[in-house]
Amino acid sequence: MDKITMAHGSGGKDMHELINSLMIKELDNGILRRRSDSAAFKTGAGEIAFTTDSYVVTPIIFPGGDIGSLAVHGTVNDLSVCGARPLYLSLALVIEEGLDRKVLERIVASIKNAAKKAGVQVIAGDTKVVGRGACDKIYINTSGIGRVFYRGLSVRSIRPQDAVIVSGGLGEHAVSVLSKREGINFGTEVLSDSAPLNGMIEKALKASRNIRFMRDPTRGGLATTLNEIAGGSGFGIALEEKDIPVSEGVRGACELLGFDPLYLACEGRALFITAPGDADKVLRALKSANFGRGARIIGKVTSGHKGKVYMRTNSGGLRLVDMLSGEQLPRIC
Amino acid sequence: MDKITMAHGSGGKDMHELINSLMIKELDNGILRRRSDSAAFKTGAGEIAFTTDSYVVTPIIFPGGDIGSLAVHGTVNDLSVCGARPLYLSLALVIEEGLDRKVLERIVASIKNAAKKAGVQVIAGDTKVVGRGACDKIYINTSGIGRVFYRGLSVRSIRPQDAVIVSGGLGEHAVSVLSKREGINFGTEVLSDSAPLNGMIEKALKASRNIRFMRDPTRGGLATTLNEIAGGSGFGIALEEKDIPVSEGVRGACELLGFDPLYLACEGRALFITAPGDADKVLRALKSANFGRGARIIGKVTSGHKGKVYMRTNSGGLRLVDMLSGEQLPRIC
Repeated sequence: MDKITMAHGSGGKDMHELINSLMIKELDNGILRRRSDSAAFKTGAGEIAFTTDSYVVTPIIFPGGDIGSLAVHGTVNDLSVCGARPLYLSLALVIEEGLDRKVLERIVASIKNAAKKAGVQVIAGDTKVVGRGACDKIYINTSGIGRVFYRGLSVRSIRPQDAVIVSGGLGEHAVSVLSKREGINFGTEVLSDSAPLNGMIEKALKASRNIRFMRDPTRGGLATTLNEIAGGSGFGIALEEKDIPVSEGVRGACELLGFDPLYLACEGRALFITAPGDADKVLRALKSANFGRGARIIGKVTSGHKGKVYMRTNSGGLRLVDMLSGEQLPRIC
Repeated sequence: MDKITMAHGSGGKDMHELINSLMIKELDNGILRRRSDSAAFKTGAGEIAFTTDSYVVTPIIFPGGDIGSLAVHGTVNDLSVCGARPLYLSLALVIEEGLDRKVLERIVASIKNAAKKAGVQVIAGDTKVVGRGACDKIYINTSGIGRVFYRGLSVRSIRPQDAVIVSGGLGEHAVSVLSKREGINFGTEVLSDSAPLNGMIEKALKASRNIRFMRDPTRGGLATTLNEIAGGSGFGIALEEKDIPVSEGVRGACELLGFDPLYLACEGRALFITAPGDADKVLRALKSANFGRGARIIGKVTSGHKGKVYMRTNSGGLRLVDMLSGEQLPRIC
């Protein structure tokens, strides 16, 4: 059977064969093996974090990653930025009839690998098949469960003079997907930044008890995420353009296509708002971690410009950085 | 704005407007209102159940329900049949560009209503928009979290002579969806059985400490679910055709189209395997509950015919009831 057919979603023999020979075999763990309608796990008293995300990226394989690893990283990161240690994922696939089984196998292997690297287990799953043309090859939903170990993260904890730190260069995921999809060669190949950030974030959280808030700048990019933070905190944010890390490849792609890297999606970057006295400690912790080598302090929280984000540009001007309005074309997420 | 556009999935202003004015407003609760990347909830020590399901039904509105209520009921039921009390859901929407906002509003209202009736809260969400033709109006993923309160449910607890009970008539969901999609009038309108079963199941679990196993016969129907149970337990199952509840409407549709009601999906029925001495108690508990009035004892577990399901037919013969092989057309799930 080298193509996925409607029978693989029917609930019958073909579906059981696919789930047993691929999903359960590859993602094997004690909970999944029970094949119950719900997974069950034991927990101590405390606070549990819960998140969900659907992944609909085109193309499903891009430089530096694919929809499978992306789905694991995205949900791991959503838990991590909330101060939780990611533990368990669910995996729900919507597959287009006719997908090559080899492609599905590659994606499941990528999920397995990403989950292993992030230290999480896939314990619940679902597989649906829709007719040709009723989805774009494969859509993936991952929901995630983690245990909160760092309390008090909130936009309401943010104070003027707090430092704004980003863990690496902007927009590499967006440019990677774009270049593959549109067949554009920007000279240097840009690899997606898609990565599991739980290890890096734990290092930062160990380094400081004064991290106020974290978020990963995915859809809408840094600009949109910072606008949400400024709006929620009631303070302003002042950025320094010269300090914002943007790789040559991303800069080149943006110049060619008229994009602003501040609005491009990242899938392996985190933003930290920290007390000013702890900014250097956090920065050092990030730089010592696998995916934080490019971390930079890029600005600070201000008591003025309430709810707004401003950037001092390289030419010395002051520019309002608004939330993404309408749609930045072409779409990434 | 009366149509959903790509901008509603961009991460920017339009998406925020949609999420604030529709999702968060309608599904309002204290956890959702925090709008964090992950929802957080407090829990005591114990066992947590976790499940996921994607819903891709066409048409999205059918007699007796819609994709919104279906997505809530399905996940509530998957938790309930594992002996868990459903508590929290995540809700991830993949919306096709051009969907009428009114249709989306109707579905979100239906989700709200279904969640309220089932006593669960939607605490995490995600909204993606894909281009025209890249999905069929809307796909929904609901993942769910519950607390396990009834331990020991397992196919390995099943013993010969155990009773097999179904909580109501078979195939009403499948026939409802089919009649609407294909525009077929079967005389009597058949309404989907889609319903939240947590209340009914709690009544049954209170009535007996000797329920061995439960499952909801969705994709692949009763036949496929019983084959899974027989296979897992290592015993056989003997059904009595005369005792299997099938409504006039479903019977008529099956005769017309050549379907077998044993293979049709239900979305508001549960199967119970109970110790023989407790079968009547469980039956009474089910009949006293909202969605269990049509409950029947339909067969028993046998030490012979290991791993197989047999049915004594109305004409007195013995028929092997195999797992669904290939695809029963037209597809429902």
